[in-house]
Amino acid sequence: MRKIYVFDTTLRDGEQSPGVNLNTREKLEIAYQLEKLGIDRMEAGFPAASPGDLAAVNAVARAVKNATVIGLSRSRENDIDAVREALIGAQDPCIHIFLATSPIHRKHKLRMEKEQVLETAKSALQYAKKYFSKIEFSLEDAGRTEYDFIAQMVSMAIGEGVNVVNIPDTVGYLNPAEYGAIFKYVKENVPDVEKVQLSAHCHNDLGMATANTLAAIQNGADQIEGTINGIGERAGNTAIEEIAMALETRQEFFGAKTSLNLSEISRTSRLVSKLTGMVVPGNKAIVGANAFAHESGIHQDGMLKEKTTYEIMTPETIGLKESKLVLGKHSGRHAFRERLIDLGYELEDELLNQAFARFKDLADKKKEVSDDDILALIEEKLVSTPGVFELETIYVTYGNQSVPTAKVRIIKEQDQAIEEDAEGNGSVDAIYNAIDKATGEEVTLSDYSIKSVSRGKDAQGEVHVVLTQNDVSAQGRGLSTDILEASARAYVDAVNQLIEKRKTYSNRERVSL
Amino acid sequence: MRKIYVFDTTLRDGEQSPGVNLNTREKLEIAYQLEKLGIDRMEAGFPAASPGDLAAVNAVARAVKNATVIGLSRSRENDIDAVREALIGAQDPCIHIFLATSPIHRKHKLRMEKEQVLETAKSALQYAKKYFSKIEFSLEDAGRTEYDFIAQMVSMAIGEGVNVVNIPDTVGYLNPAEYGAIFKYVKENVPDVEKVQLSAHCHNDLGMATANTLAAIQNGADQIEGTINGIGERAGNTAIEEIAMALETRQEFFGAKTSLNLSEISRTSRLVSKLTGMVVPGNKAIVGANAFAHESGIHQDGMLKEKTTYEIMTPETIGLKESKLVLGKHSGRHAFRERLIDLGYELEDELLNQAFARFKDLADKKKEVSDDDILALIEEKLVSTPGVFELETIYVTYGNQSVPTAKVRIIKEQDQAIEEDAEGNGSVDAIYNAIDKATGEEVTLSDYSIKSVSRGKDAQGEVHVVLTQNDVSAQGRGLSTDILEASARAYVDAVNQLIEKRKTYSNRERVSL
Repeated sequence: MRKIYVFDTTLRDGEQSPGVNLNTREKLEIAYQLEKLGIDRMEAGFPAASPGDLAAVNAVARAVKNATVIGLSRSRENDIDAVREALIGAQDPCIHIFLATSPIHRKHKLRMEKEQVLETAKSALQYAKKYFSKIEFSLEDAGRTEYDFIAQMVSMAIGEGVNVVNIPDTVGYLNPAEYGAIFKYVKENVPDVEKVQLSAHCHNDLGMATANTLAAIQNGADQIEGTINGIGERAGNTAIEEIAMALETRQEFFGAKTSLNLSEISRTSRLVSKLTGMVVPGNKAIVGANAFAHESGIHQDGMLKEKTTYEIMTPETIGLKESKLVLGKHSGRHAFRERLIDLGYELEDELLNQAFARFKDLADKKKEVSDDDILALIEEKLVSTPGVFELETIYVTYGNQSVPTAKVRIIKEQDQAIEEDAEGNGSVDAIYNAIDKATGEEVTLSDYSIKSVSRGKDAQGEVHVVLTQNDVSAQGRGLSTDILEASARAYVDAVNQLIEKRKTYSNRERVSL
Repeated sequence: MRKIYVFDTTLRDGEQSPGVNLNTREKLEIAYQLEKLGIDRMEAGFPAASPGDLAAVNAVARAVKNATVIGLSRSRENDIDAVREALIGAQDPCIHIFLATSPIHRKHKLRMEKEQVLETAKSALQYAKKYFSKIEFSLEDAGRTEYDFIAQMVSMAIGEGVNVVNIPDTVGYLNPAEYGAIFKYVKENVPDVEKVQLSAHCHNDLGMATANTLAAIQNGADQIEGTINGIGERAGNTAIEEIAMALETRQEFFGAKTSLNLSEISRTSRLVSKLTGMVVPGNKAIVGANAFAHESGIHQDGMLKEKTTYEIMTPETIGLKESKLVLGKHSGRHAFRERLIDLGYELEDELLNQAFARFKDLADKKKEVSDDDILALIEEKLVSTPGVFELETIYVTYGNQSVPTAKVRIIKEQDQAIEEDAEGNGSVDAIYNAIDKATGEEVTLSDYSIKSVSRGKDAQGEVHVVLTQNDVSAQGRGLSTDILEASARAYVDAVNQLIEKRKTYSNRERVSL
């Protein structure tokens, strides 16, 4: 069966979603999970965006073992140099160079004629060739480009010896018939087209990214580009899990498949949602909480002895298992460790001890500790980094007939204790005012959300906040059985991240593709 | 240009999403908004499900002025009778009868041969004809049905004089080429096919509902069925807003359009999300918070003088306006009323007075009251119903070094004050334990979520909870500048709803389509 290569851009196009701000530790955690999922190629970032981006791409490049690691670059020598530096230490580095080709982009953005576009791309590729043995070239906004000019550009790229040519629908404008027709045209009209792999990269502005990508596959695309959960700018990119499951479920129709480990889909989806703060709605295809009929507890009309009556895929395929209530306050370190291994985590002793301590705290507060609770603890632990400020105690009084007050005690740089109190128009507002006083940082809260980790009144809550200071944004997360404590922890975490990020992430440049 | 009829099933297929529980007031509020949006046909529910469902459909039927109101029915006389009763008072009633046609459903669910399926449907249609002048017939799981049997069934339905024949992809299995081909086949092979309208009804299990529906339109479908925000069982139904905007954006390609008032899309989406509790993710096509590039605040590379470089639709088209900060504590009743009219709400005096009182309370706590804040207040007010219990005061102390405690004072049936206090493993847990003591109701919390209404530390939070008791579930919402108060209000609201619903909604039957 024909293999479709999977190019994941969760860490680049996905990370560009408004409000998403991954730090290096978080990017690494996602990269490890993407390797488990079995993606072939991983776009780790846009190194020219800022020194912080370059460093994060380098960290991923050094950590990834099996996938090709890719850095994005405009058609400029400076950008290409940034990718060179960022990919030092990669096992299998690849540069991804792009230039816009559509009339509207040529006129308004590039202010170039076709010839200049061809020449600019050609020089960039020639420069890149000196340093890279693997190159992907993208025609930005190919979806709105003249067929003959697409062919010319693809032909030029083949002449320069690139490995992959990507034909994106940058603005999410096309429908499947149109997008498939472009691939058919290129396959039939570009000489030596068999020398490159063709790639599909779609956006979901009109809700057609998945169908368009599948149409490209039917018309000869060798590679698909997308993100986990379909995150990305605007309405996002193609959701990789949808393509993988469509090919799997309709194998006889498409005659093509990815080499993903499908049973890692669910775990990957949860991790990306958690670390990016991008919610996966209940009705999301494949990975939404309601996606599988039998999960919903609906009593169907009549006796349904045959699951396939309403189920075209099984939840087990994507690694979804019923959460088991297994551990409680009497569970020991050994049982905890075994459960973790079952869930896919083998931790070093020190991390295991820390996680076990948090588990014991939780089991004191919560009668039954579910798999979801444990996963939340572990994932939190794996990506947490010590920062300048640490929240020690928090005390809040709230009444709807009085003014809410909060008192916090924060440790600065591991030795200086700062206590502050404040009022607010609500309990969280009071807490945040007190923390602001304690840290002395002027920040704006630009996003705040809470999610229950498990069900029931004693569930853990996970708070996600985004703080902004000048042009730098950072996210923070907090996990607790109490929403006030989780809110406080998330805020302090975000302040720490902000302090870290502003050193290297200011004036960050962004690109679209 | 060819008109595509829009059949909205937000109140039926959408309401069947796990966790969604609309009461009659909420169904009415959505129905009013759907009329503003300009949908042609509205499926209000499945009257045979329970007496409560029947009553809710009847309330919608009597309220709706312009759209056809539809009740769903299995191919059974009892179901048809329930629809008759439910549609009493409708201006333009229509019954929607279905029967499964695929081999897998015939064998495992119906245990019928083709002939029996034909006969069963035929008798149902003949019975329905006595009472209804408008009938839609659906072939459940048509997507996996033999072409020739589809043709036979459609032909039978035409013979019985139905107005619309719906050919659903019930399990979300097909891709656009396949789904389009069914419509083409039916158009070309069924005699007298021009006597009925053909309808497309898709599910999004593989992420292709939108593309499939558009393929049906290209191949002759006259009507599309879907829901706002694509809610529905499993991965949901076709998102109506995506179809409307795809037809609008690519008019020259499709040569077809709906008669929706596109500028009501944004408002409808927000209302449905709020009342169903189904989150719209940031990266949702059309209605996600990030869907429009210029909203994201991203600094694009280079000078973008021309918006169309990255924007294929404008946010104004769907009625999205920049939120203006207009009102504060010194704003009077007149200014408030004017602002409401601007936002599309003309309230009667009593409602206006109540809303203004809440606005003043809010303005005391919050410096700047945004349009989003005002809309949240109004929408809350419009759907709120007085219940058995009313929360009066709440007092909470929380410290991460001590045991959280809560005290609540609740008024029962407008005269009996009940005060209770309780501890918990967190502040919300303590509050909910205290409320449980006060109400004496044994309930399970099956869902809890919070959303910020606007940005910033002093934003209002909206809490959505789902409570379950035996086989009845009910949702509640609470709005406040404090998350503890919002949590308490939502819980009390849900208890009230539950008490109301258990009278008429127990042993509710559900069907899929």
